[in-house]
Amino acid sequence: MDLNADLAEGFGRWELGDDAALLRIVTSANVACGFHAGDPGVIRRACELAVAGGVAVGAQVGYRDLAGFGRRFVDVAPAELTDDVLYQVGALAGLARVAGTSVTYVKPHGALYNAIVHHEEQAGAVVRAVREYDPGLAVLGLPGSAWLRLAEGAGLRTVREAFADRAYTPEGTLVSRREPGAVLHDPEEIALRCVRLAAGEPIEAVDGSRIVVRAESICVHGDSPGAVAIATAVRDRLRAEGIPLAPFAPPPSG
Amino acid sequence: MDLNADLAEGFGRWELGDDAALLRIVTSANVACGFHAGDPGVIRRACELAVAGGVAVGAQVGYRDLAGFGRRFVDVAPAELTDDVLYQVGALAGLARVAGTSVTYVKPHGALYNAIVHHEEQAGAVVRAVREYDPGLAVLGLPGSAWLRLAEGAGLRTVREAFADRAYTPEGTLVSRREPGAVLHDPEEIALRCVRLAAGEPIEAVDGSRIVVRAESICVHGDSPGAVAIATAVRDRLRAEGIPLAPFAPPPSG
Amino acid sequence: MDLNADLAEGFGRWELGDDAALLRIVTSANVACGFHAGDPGVIRRACELAVAGGVAVGAQVGYRDLAGFGRRFVDVAPAELTDDVLYQVGALAGLARVAGTSVTYVKPHGALYNAIVHHEEQAGAVVRAVREYDPGLAVLGLPGSAWLRLAEGAGLRTVREAFADRAYTPEGTLVSRREPGAVLHDPEEIALRCVRLAAGEPIEAVDGSRIVVRAESICVHGDSPGAVAIATAVRDRLRAEGIPLAPFAPPPSG
Amino acid sequence: MDLNADLAEGFGRWELGDDAALLRIVTSANVACGFHAGDPGVIRRACELAVAGGVAVGAQVGYRDLAGFGRRFVDVAPAELTDDVLYQVGALAGLARVAGTSVTYVKPHGALYNAIVHHEEQAGAVVRAVREYDPGLAVLGLPGSAWLRLAEGAGLRTVREAFADRAYTPEGTLVSRREPGAVLHDPEEIALRCVRLAAGEPIEAVDGSRIVVRAESICVHGDSPGAVAIATAVRDRLRAEGIPLAPFAPPPSG
Repeated sequence: MDLNADLAEGFGRWELGDDAALLRIVTSANVACGFHAGDPGVIRRACELAVAGGVAVGAQVGYRDLAGFGRRFVDVAPAELTDDVLYQVGALAGLARVAGTSVTYVKPHGALYNAIVHHEEQAGAVVRAVREYDPGLAVLGLPGSAWLRLAEGAGLRTVREAFADRAYTPEGTLVSRREPGAVLHDPEEIALRCVRLAAGEPIEAVDGSRIVVRAESICVHGDSPGAVAIATAVRDRLRAEGIPLAPFAPPPSG
Repeated sequence: MDLNADLAEGFGRWELGDDAALLRIVTSANVACGFHAGDPGVIRRACELAVAGGVAVGAQVGYRDLAGFGRRFVDVAPAELTDDVLYQVGALAGLARVAGTSVTYVKPHGALYNAIVHHEEQAGAVVRAVREYDPGLAVLGLPGSAWLRLAEGAGLRTVREAFADRAYTPEGTLVSRREPGAVLHDPEEIALRCVRLAAGEPIEAVDGSRIVVRAESICVHGDSPGAVAIATAVRDRLRAEGIPLAPFAPPPSG
Repeated sequence: MDLNADLAEGFGRWELGDDAALLRIVTSANVACGFHAGDPGVIRRACELAVAGGVAVGAQVGYRDLAGFGRRFVDVAPAELTDDVLYQVGALAGLARVAGTSVTYVKPHGALYNAIVHHEEQAGAVVRAVREYDPGLAVLGLPGSAWLRLAEGAGLRTVREAFADRAYTPEGTLVSRREPGAVLHDPEEIALRCVRLAAGEPIEAVDGSRIVVRAESICVHGDSPGAVAIATAVRDRLRAEGIPLAPFAPPPSG
Repeated sequence: MDLNADLAEGFGRWELGDDAALLRIVTSANVACGFHAGDPGVIRRACELAVAGGVAVGAQVGYRDLAGFGRRFVDVAPAELTDDVLYQVGALAGLARVAGTSVTYVKPHGALYNAIVHHEEQAGAVVRAVREYDPGLAVLGLPGSAWLRLAEGAGLRTVREAFADRAYTPEGTLVSRREPGAVLHDPEEIALRCVRLAAGEPIEAVDGSRIVVRAESICVHGDSPGAVAIATAVRDRLRAEGIPLAPFAPPPSG
């Protein structure tokens, strides 16, 4: 099993999340690329910490929207989106290179992540960017999304993720954040859920029914108040259960 | 002899210069990287045109200053400047890669270009970025600048450039743009000057004295009104005199 | 009748349109406010030219999207949109004030203009900003839009505009720019159409049928290649027909 | 005596400082205007809290440099700087207006604050903006700065500030942050110092000598870890000593 988290989400004077702590816990780092968050210095330090921890570096690409943190859908034309993604992946790759690693996967951020669950044109645009840049990159995303489906059709390796702290509907989709109970907060409960996920056992959906969520990676949040405590609990519990943690797309060995 | 020009300096809705025309003339393209100009789509098209024309792609890195077009000195700390340059070079490299080429040199833009003639810390910061990213990249700049001196000291290949349309002082430095006669406008006069430059013959300084300017590349401007006419005159005259034109840092052969 | 055009749409090094020429023709200037275009210097000069020409200054507010020139829908939350509009109107008001005039109306730009034809929440958010800032401001927009309907409901003065160079459907809506024949190019044809519009006479729709478009202002484009020629033709023809031109929301008298 | 602090310095997703707490303590709020920090929503909320607390609102104008938080000198031309300041003051004024208050003073931020201690052209440019916008605005700054001197010459009301937590040289200037002991951390020591400042009594300089610093306002920091504790201690101690706290440029009475 892999643990991924969003990192390098500060910008200039503004810090967000505890990159140093999380990079001692997760196995894959979704590193912001500067369009929604992440200045070059923050990105570089995250890459250096990833190298130190043996953590894989992925490109957390987003809409060009610093003011909105990439959380607002932008109706960017597919050709422009492809180029925007290429720019971001390349920029991260440059900083990863000097840190002694390289980008091994792509995971879109925020509103782009949500859009390409259904938005075929934008999903295709991001897939095209990845394939053009390096068809050896893996893509990480939501099971059932257009993003993973089109990526698979384009011959890319697709990796499905589950969310440690999010409630699921009986159909296996995420409960909207606007609904009560959408986000779980108790580290131990979350950790136990992750063990079941990792073991392929059913977890409890929001209505009490049981569903199986198949995933090769679990996303833990990087910027919430209890982020480090939850990530630690998940990591420790998985280890205690003998579930090995490793990046799905390992970094180049130093 | 090499001819270089600044390209990809539009941004979004705003166009600047005639990239398509200039990329049929010059041998080295200083491609803007998005911090002072150049959106991903403009950058990509410039790279594609460069590939079509056998033109080398260089990273025209600048200060993060869209509103000032990178023409205002910014007192950015050296470590941040290094990371800003790495980000820009990487971003360009990503788009160059999908266009079928790669970055072969770095030429700073505008106020950064001017600053690192004398500003040792910033010059060193840009040199460090190049060396960290790829010590095989050439660096293009002003003869006598701290930038070229420190780059040479760091083991980088340095390339000196002359300016086709700028007046020189008797000491061989550029006449400030604020002085009368600083910029030449007549295409034929400029072209003849370039022939002398290329042949290693003396040219006339602003006071009428004769000086020899040694350069491996001549910079023609990309965004002035007569840019294409001047570049064409220079190219045609150099060819007519039998002076071969070729990039100093050739792109990878397709 | 009023003639309005989008102005101050350059940014830093990048120019767009001929503000000086258009401000000798139109009666209302939709001045960009910096979020999609328009740096403070360009805005100030447009305001000064407006004062010189007796032209009314309106706030051409847009999404925060320089790279997309405000032409991409952004799903910004209504409360944020209200504040974004207030910020832009205030910024323009500051520069208008030192130029000796004041903002007398608001006309959203690009994708925001299009969105609030139907998007009730965003339309309401812009209306709220205008009402909160100054309920004496007029609002300019498309007949039948949610924007004008909600503004009217909020007690604001609403002004309907027609487009000089755009084809209309038989239902009186604009033919999409993606359709053939959507944009007219011949200055004389456009000018004659404007005379009929101004006189309340029917104009020809795209299918040859005749429709009446009721408008108090005609929008002429500011940044197309023939913009000045078309605006001049419209102005001259209206004058020749004895139709008086005047701002619908006059600037304060000096 | 007046207490001022920098506020509204978050941006989008990124928070900085505790505006709500500080606006219950200080009497003057230096509200960021969006160029170095401060999105429209953060600005508006700061203005609303200022109204609730009877706190004066000042424009904390800065260089256009989000990535550098306005802490890097930018060699912007004076005419552009004037327009940049006008844009920022106007934007803040728009949001202050809907919050029920207005801007009563201007205090430049960060590198601009430092630059205009000595940089005559930039100091003059900011003075010009204030005078053009509203000669009734006060200006807040460092005693002995070009900024206050030129503002006074232009007929503006100038207000000198002291820094609660900064060490002074025997000459009465600030000890550089790079020197040891430049910043004081103990709330009680800082508060006692402020009492002496307010009473016109000598305080201890960094070398142990005694100097008198004359000021009408004391700046407490808004974004340091102990910011609220220090501001509270200063306010409480001044009150305990019977020193009345009030804005030097009071907001309009509701």
